[in-house]
Amino acid sequence: MHIKPELRVIGIDDGPLVDRQVLVVGAVMRGGAWLDGVVRAYVEKDGLDATQRISAMINGSKHAGQLRAIMLNGVTFGGFNVVDLAALREETGLPAIAVVRKPPDLERMRLALANLPDSGRRYETILRAGPLSVVQTEWRGGPVYYQCQGLGKEDAARLICETAVHSRIPEPLRVAHLIATGIVLGESSRRA
Amino acid sequence: MHIKPELRVIGIDDGPLVDRQVLVVGAVMRGGAWLDGVVRAYVEKDGLDATQRISAMINGSKHAGQLRAIMLNGVTFGGFNVVDLAALREETGLPAIAVVRKPPDLERMRLALANLPDSGRRYETILRAGPLSVVQTEWRGGPVYYQCQGLGKEDAARLICETAVHSRIPEPLRVAHLIATGIVLGESSRRA
Repeated sequence: MHIKPELRVIGIDDGPLVDRQVLVVGAVMRGGAWLDGVVRAYVEKDGLDATQRISAMINGSKHAGQLRAIMLNGVTFGGFNVVDLAALREETGLPAIAVVRKPPDLERMRLALANLPDSGRRYETILRAGPLSVVQTEWRGGPVYYQCQGLGKEDAARLICETAVHSRIPEPLRVAHLIATGIVLGESSRRA
Repeated sequence: MHIKPELRVIGIDDGPLVDRQVLVVGAVMRGGAWLDGVVRAYVEKDGLDATQRISAMINGSKHAGQLRAIMLNGVTFGGFNVVDLAALREETGLPAIAVVRKPPDLERMRLALANLPDSGRRYETILRAGPLSVVQTEWRGGPVYYQCQGLGKEDAARLICETAVHSRIPEPLRVAHLIATGIVLGESSRRA
């Protein structure tokens, strides 16, 4: 994969859970450099529609044709509404990377899911996102962890490092987080 | 006024008028370079609360102490809810600049205001924002026009030019516009 510095990437994060419909924001950026557009969708809290809603948000955008990759803040949105990373890749035709600060505690997640309908299906969707890889960006304070579909883990690591320009969180995800928390709470919170 | 490249500026724009309460977004940026935070407020469509709501949004933010200037997309928010630029400057203690692409048609505005309560007061507030100045940024496609309070027109022009990094619209205003339109409509519109 050829990674140009101004490659268009969409970073996607959700806002805090204050309503049954949870705000999801997509920040379209030229690499880590500048914001080119903002899209939004809503997903149901603890629902099963995140993959479909996020695919539709991306495919319905005027930016769809220019996008080269999708970055997600993890695979769970709006509580435990799990994104099927392989299905998202298939629906959009774009490589998809889920990035997190800490390796997920899968056993704890499995127990939390037990209280929800379709718990087995949700858990399998989390696992199906792919093996967890780790990459150390140029920033101190620990590495980041990621799962990816539609591109190799080395390419995904390069894309993460190239776009991690103001913190170890890739800029499209940092910006999507600031927007989603700022709009829902009135003021953005720092950590994605 | 000493203008550092990473001076913190808040750019403020409103979203489209789809409800009685209109979304107003503040994008806190380090100069024209990168997004540091997002705040939001709501103002009443054609109401009289824009100055107070925007002052409170700024003063209530954790970024308040670091901000060095306010930029507004014009002085009317949520329809004809007029910001009193001098009062905003006074309430926040910050220099305030209202930037527009085209010189406002004051006579047309006066006629439009005639249909609203307090039309005289609104019109005076528009005039009180100060004389209209013009500056040509490094971008083609025409100059921008501005009114300012709390700083000289040369300093305001420099701040506009320094932050107009991706178009003739200063980056904090361009970003606030993308966020406000993206959140309200589902997809951002380009022109501030």
